[in-house]
Amino acid sequence: MRYKDEAKQSAIIKATVKLVNQIGFAASSVSKIAKEADVSPATIYIYYKNKEDLLVSTYIDIKQKMSEAILKDFDDSQPIRDIMKGFWFGAFNFIKNSPGEFQYTEQFANSPFSALVNKSEIDKHFEPQVNIIQKGIQLKIIKDVPLEILIVFVFFPVAILSNPRMSEKFDCDEKSIETAFDMAWDAIKL
Amino acid sequence: MRYKDEAKQSAIIKATVKLVNQIGFAASSVSKIAKEADVSPATIYIYYKNKEDLLVSTYIDIKQKMSEAILKDFDDSQPIRDIMKGFWFGAFNFIKNSPGEFQYTEQFANSPFSALVNKSEIDKHFEPQVNIIQKGIQLKIIKDVPLEILIVFVFFPVAILSNPRMSEKFDCDEKSIETAFDMAWDAIKL
Repeated sequence: MRYKDEAKQSAIIKATVKLVNQIGFAASSVSKIAKEADVSPATIYIYYKNKEDLLVSTYIDIKQKMSEAILKDFDDSQPIRDIMKGFWFGAFNFIKNSPGEFQYTEQFANSPFSALVNKSEIDKHFEPQVNIIQKGIQLKIIKDVPLEILIVFVFFPVAILSNPRMSEKFDCDEKSIETAFDMAWDAIKL
Repeated sequence: MRYKDEAKQSAIIKATVKLVNQIGFAASSVSKIAKEADVSPATIYIYYKNKEDLLVSTYIDIKQKMSEAILKDFDDSQPIRDIMKGFWFGAFNFIKNSPGEFQYTEQFANSPFSALVNKSEIDKHFEPQVNIIQKGIQLKIIKDVPLEILIVFVFFPVAILSNPRMSEKFDCDEKSIETAFDMAWDAIKL
């Protein structure tokens, strides 16, 4: 029974991502999403209160999956630099393998719907990553500057370079993403 | 006569930016833009072939103004690091002073209209900046890695940190933007 539910919910989220990327937030109605997911609109309302709830939940779901991908090979006993490199490649692989999901999060963050997100629910998923950065600061391995500035150097470059929009002009392979990691590390290391 | 024309064209561009940021590309019709600019739709068609031409020209106009702001204190005789720092603060000031124009370029780059832009017309405006980076590589001051990767570290961090969306959570003052420059320089320097 539970399995069936999860399959339906997964189909609804997949349909939401596909439709929003194709026709935008405004035009993506619950009935169109239901049709794309091959479920009845009533089924969607079992899982989600309304369209806003569906859009926000889809965003949170993708963010959680992104965090899981970043933490895939996380081993707390490794040196900070190796852990950060693991995060970097985890993010790269997620964006390369799920370009539609990543595009949805980018569009969502730029939309008025982003105001509806409980930020602490997102932060919760990225706590292990933030803890490693803070540990690096304490051990005087990472520069003691505001977290927001560190994130600009350790998350955004991989997001920009893995982005399919960027790759039109620039094919970002594993070698380039490794070069970029070395540069990001030079930026943040003490 | 010429003065009057430029004032009208400037009003049309200002109205385009304001309306697109408010209601999006699809809903921003030539007649609505004309109303916002306080000119007749026929006046717009004197300067622009159609809506697409107006949207693309507005994008190119903003990109040109951004480049001028970045090059404001450009002095070829200075050390490369000082020149790059000047570019960095030029970009910061442009985005802080023209958040609406910057938001328009971000939206535009994510829209299907971006395919209509003659990329070489944009590149032309950023030639001096690219030349400095290439000079830095030749002098073995800047790492010899693909230009696309260097740009990720020297342009995107300042764009993200100056972004009003980002500043909701993080007030990026001159001190933070200087800290971030030092980090960007650590990333790109040999």
